Amino acid sequence: MAEARPASGEDSLIARYFKPLATDPGAFALDDDAAALKAAGDDIVVTTDAIVEGVHFLPDDPPDTLARKALRVNLSDVAAKGAMPAGFVLTLALRKVDEAWLGSFAAALGEDARSYGCPLLGGDTVSTPGPLTISITAFGRVAPDRMVHRVGARAGDRIVVTGTIGDAALGLDVLKGGPVAAALAGDVTAREMLAGRYRVPQPRTGLANAVRDFASSAMDVSDGLAGDLAKLCKASGVSAIVNVADIPLSAPAAALLARGAVGVEAIIAGGDDYEILCTVPEDRLSAFRQTAQAAAIPVTTIGVVIPELAGPRFVDGEGRELSLQRLSYSHF
Amino acid sequence: MAEARPASGEDSLIARYFKPLATDPGAFALDDDAAALKAAGDDIVVTTDAIVEGVHFLPDDPPDTLARKALRVNLSDVAAKGAMPAGFVLTLALRKVDEAWLGSFAAALGEDARSYGCPLLGGDTVSTPGPLTISITAFGRVAPDRMVHRVGARAGDRIVVTGTIGDAALGLDVLKGGPVAAALAGDVTAREMLAGRYRVPQPRTGLANAVRDFASSAMDVSDGLAGDLAKLCKASGVSAIVNVADIPLSAPAAALLARGAVGVEAIIAGGDDYEILCTVPEDRLSAFRQTAQAAAIPVTTIGVVIPELAGPRFVDGEGRELSLQRLSYSHF
Repeated sequence: MAEARPASGEDSLIARYFKPLATDPGAFALDDDAAALKAAGDDIVVTTDAIVEGVHFLPDDPPDTLARKALRVNLSDVAAKGAMPAGFVLTLALRKVDEAWLGSFAAALGEDARSYGCPLLGGDTVSTPGPLTISITAFGRVAPDRMVHRVGARAGDRIVVTGTIGDAALGLDVLKGGPVAAALAGDVTAREMLAGRYRVPQPRTGLANAVRDFASSAMDVSDGLAGDLAKLCKASGVSAIVNVADIPLSAPAAALLARGAVGVEAIIAGGDDYEILCTVPEDRLSAFRQTAQAAAIPVTTIGVVIPELAGPRFVDGEGRELSLQRLSYSHF
Repeated sequence: MAEARPASGEDSLIARYFKPLATDPGAFALDDDAAALKAAGDDIVVTTDAIVEGVHFLPDDPPDTLARKALRVNLSDVAAKGAMPAGFVLTLALRKVDEAWLGSFAAALGEDARSYGCPLLGGDTVSTPGPLTISITAFGRVAPDRMVHRVGARAGDRIVVTGTIGDAALGLDVLKGGPVAAALAGDVTAREMLAGRYRVPQPRTGLANAVRDFASSAMDVSDGLAGDLAKLCKASGVSAIVNVADIPLSAPAAALLARGAVGVEAIIAGGDDYEILCTVPEDRLSAFRQTAQAAAIPVTTIGVVIPELAGPRFVDGEGRELSLQRLSYSHF
């Protein structure tokens, strides 16, 4: 039981590791009690995500990938809302001070903060007897009232995803030494690619403006494509038909599926993809595609929005509906 | 190890307990992936504070006081920067779902959110095998470039604090059954008052505009008056002389000090006061006082800023300098 919040020890930790990340003038070099974020006429998009050791990441996950994932899952939300990164605050609950760990964590976080244009604005470092917990609140800027919502999909809109789906869930299985690891025993390249997709997502910041300008609704895929699409449909008061054969897969994922080493459920209900799922009206699809191509972000149409209230349907090449046991992961 | 972020279980928890707190239109009833905060031409002040069971609060602390403290320590920062509350996001790391606990927590949080005009904008609920951890990032609005900093105190400025100092530290000792509890064995009223000051701080939101308009520097007192004044002086490149006899004390604190039951160090280095510490140029002191009086917030001048780089000095009625063993609490 401590009398109050941390003081000198924390101050020196912050100065050493996190001050270099606080490049925005509104961060006041972390020497103040708060930051000042300039809205510059925009709306500020706010999103928050926490990751807990043993729940969201493995105890031996490297600190550099943890740092990147903690920030990127938030940047993924910002991009899916059509906003550009503006900054973030970090809360670290640490069991002990491990200088090597902190150095690596802060260096990777700083690299990502620079490359995504998302400076550290402030934070809090506290001690905990429990698992390492990393909580980030990230901010984006978007023109007033232009944030893209889960609400907004209309019948006839095309359903689009970025990148490939399912890799991260397969990568987690690799890291846990599960069936996917066994199936890929001879293929270190595929194992590393999938594990990398789990550990270090690629937020689609480059697509934010296209989402803002052309999508009728959007969210990022974090809990699994099937479950997240169900949420989007429910919010919009519509349903969807997805052609499973159209869902974009990486070469390793496609091979595992073709061999029967994994089922389609592992792909579309796995989660941790951090790709953008959005709906685009047909008359804007071409402009959306062109903008995505210019940003070098692969986008794939996987289905269509239909005017129903039932959950989305996933159909195979012959139009047969798949029956899914689970849509996504739940904590409680 | 979970595959991804929480889904249906969390969604229903949020709907049940936290949706009623999301009264701002920009919170989209917590049905989206992010909130949209309108800056309305102001700068957005951002501050974040986490509290951990067993570190910052006692395992048997009531959920309603925890909720209030978690929000109020952030509101205290917002007020000390001269800003008005705009909203907050909440991250809850829970070991288990205890409906009674959550109901009481959310109800109290909602009451405070309403009374301070600070709606819930979003959040994340995750499971943890470790201690309950409550992390809040709060936002304030202040006119562009008008946030009040730790930097800015000038020689000759008066040092002012709100309320009374030291009660919370004494209250923590009461709750832990320490020497203060023993000294107040016969005085349940005093014990409850001090414990209440520890458990439920009073953020000085009503003074925010006066701080913005009249203070040359400001911060809230969270780690102890002595340590926090040292930080403010260091940031401003000045020092200070504080007349210990002028530090405002509650009746129980004054009586404990007079009886020798506690030393002055327990008062000025204890922390958790969540009062505002600011410096006010002499020619604005009268206007500052009048505004504070109109807001019914007691303010007391306790010393003066001097042009030195040494740490602040605390002197007694005869001008003798006190030697302090510790200035504030440190985690690491």
